[in-house]
Amino acid sequence: MNILITGGSGFLGARLARTLLAQGSLALAGAPAQPIQRVVLVDRVAPPADLAADARVQPLLGDLGEQLAAGALPLADVQAVFHLAAAVSGECEADFDLGMRSNLDATRQLLEGCRRAGHAPVFVFSSSVAVFGDSPEQRLPEVIEDTTLPTPQNSYGIQKFIGEQLVADYTRKGFVQGRNVRLMTVSVRPGRPNGAASSFLSGMLREPLAGERARCPVAPETAVALSSPGNTVRGIIRASTASSTEWGARTAVNLPALTTTVGEMAQALERVAGKEATALIDWEPDAQIAKIITSWPSRFQPKRAQALGLAADESFEAILRDYVRENPQAVKLAVKG
Amino acid sequence: MNILITGGSGFLGARLARTLLAQGSLALAGAPAQPIQRVVLVDRVAPPADLAADARVQPLLGDLGEQLAAGALPLADVQAVFHLAAAVSGECEADFDLGMRSNLDATRQLLEGCRRAGHAPVFVFSSSVAVFGDSPEQRLPEVIEDTTLPTPQNSYGIQKFIGEQLVADYTRKGFVQGRNVRLMTVSVRPGRPNGAASSFLSGMLREPLAGERARCPVAPETAVALSSPGNTVRGIIRASTASSTEWGARTAVNLPALTTTVGEMAQALERVAGKEATALIDWEPDAQIAKIITSWPSRFQPKRAQALGLAADESFEAILRDYVRENPQAVKLAVKG
Repeated sequence: MNILITGGSGFLGARLARTLLAQGSLALAGAPAQPIQRVVLVDRVAPPADLAADARVQPLLGDLGEQLAAGALPLADVQAVFHLAAAVSGECEADFDLGMRSNLDATRQLLEGCRRAGHAPVFVFSSSVAVFGDSPEQRLPEVIEDTTLPTPQNSYGIQKFIGEQLVADYTRKGFVQGRNVRLMTVSVRPGRPNGAASSFLSGMLREPLAGERARCPVAPETAVALSSPGNTVRGIIRASTASSTEWGARTAVNLPALTTTVGEMAQALERVAGKEATALIDWEPDAQIAKIITSWPSRFQPKRAQALGLAADESFEAILRDYVRENPQAVKLAVKG
Repeated sequence: MNILITGGSGFLGARLARTLLAQGSLALAGAPAQPIQRVVLVDRVAPPADLAADARVQPLLGDLGEQLAAGALPLADVQAVFHLAAAVSGECEADFDLGMRSNLDATRQLLEGCRRAGHAPVFVFSSSVAVFGDSPEQRLPEVIEDTTLPTPQNSYGIQKFIGEQLVADYTRKGFVQGRNVRLMTVSVRPGRPNGAASSFLSGMLREPLAGERARCPVAPETAVALSSPGNTVRGIIRASTASSTEWGARTAVNLPALTTTVGEMAQALERVAGKEATALIDWEPDAQIAKIITSWPSRFQPKRAQALGLAADESFEAILRDYVRENPQAVKLAVKG
């Protein structure tokens, strides 16, 4: 079996590739498991060294839209496509055309490529919790269900929601076997801060653990919905293995999220790395960031995901201990317990 | 004030143009009424003679997408755009690419044209009740509200729903002042049958009134949600006059619909034109058409439309008497009462 991952050198794409290669086989869409022969990683940047060293990995470097236009993707030879590549929310707000091109046009071109390939591959589309947004004209309900109407409050959310619609219709027409999954905010992301408003939800843990100061721009009582990297990848893979009957409706599945508060996250950090760690957090409110963060939903009833056997992370402390174990080189403080 | 109507020579477009020209002025988006100087009718076919004879009418003949690509639309000079042009449901199912081009690409190009024009015109987008569809995997609720999640069951419905999302984001960005309105099934449409599954919902009245036989492919107890042509145009115009505060959320407004049954429609026909008329209806079930028609919702709670002062037609008999009055040349049977 051959697999293609767009955004395959990114943090989630690379983790997905590693997980798939480690398990060695995949039971696609309810079919018996087949060995994984090749994983094509499409990205602008080269894959991490460990993936590049795996003989089953085939990197395809370049802009996704340009590669699709050139017919450079081996879509006729892949049984599963994981479409993770996207311009992120901040970029899309700053550059409307970039977002339309990277998120709407590239998704449509990729679906068209699969349609032309003619064998209806499994197509997992990574949508986002950003399809939901609270506004004064249209309040979000307290608890988000799979049937809650998305009301995106930014271009990124609109583009992801349009992508879901395209995947649904290409699936209905038999061009792909689509699986729309909405990813929650991933924490703790390793690496460095990025331009996303949610960046501090990793930074306020990651930087103190590395002995560096970090800023928390929202009040401790701010509620957030999070998923660990491992749990997020588990949800993405489960989307690919579900039969169409198990999957059910062509609308998107909200992946489970742990509802916690920023204050509880800091408490978990203190239990893991002591007051030395939390002393490195600067609580400096930023009205702009707080407005965005509090417009996101924090409570979900992810019935369809639960029926697929998926569950939220058990606690933020467990998420944090996973991060410490998986990223020893990034942890400078002594860890307790 | 200059106005542009796409699909302006079509049945609804021409009726909208006539209504606007007859009222002579328009109070756009809550602003004071301004006289209407020009109405540009963009369509593949020439406008009806009465409109062509009006000095304020400027026909623009050709394919909408091609005209947009050529920059032929006077978007810099129009204060309101009514976007009614679309490939219909049957065409879009038969020819996927035609639907994507006519409904998705042309809508996006039109929005881009407005954005480039730079003065954020009012942009009324005619979406459709076809965004809603019942499926075994995802049942529609008994009553559709403005916040019900659309689950389109055909490409036309998907394309209309994507159009709503684009209009919402172009509005949020300040490129247009968008108003998404979902039109209900329009009955009684004058003219001839078309390829739509709903065609009989006009034909089963129109043809008997003209002394011709008509086929009804569904059972009398089949519930449907209808709006007269006049009431539909009233909803479209109200969308353009609502201030952004009155309009509220950027999601679509469901226009009010009269819930009736096909049997009640036949009874109304009998009251208007006697047993002579209903004897011309052939009740010949068609499983294919029945499946489509019964997948559509028939009950709505159109709160936002009601808050804008809009209401459903009072009865199907009233709709029918309007049709008879407005289309005397098409009525051959004697009318009672």
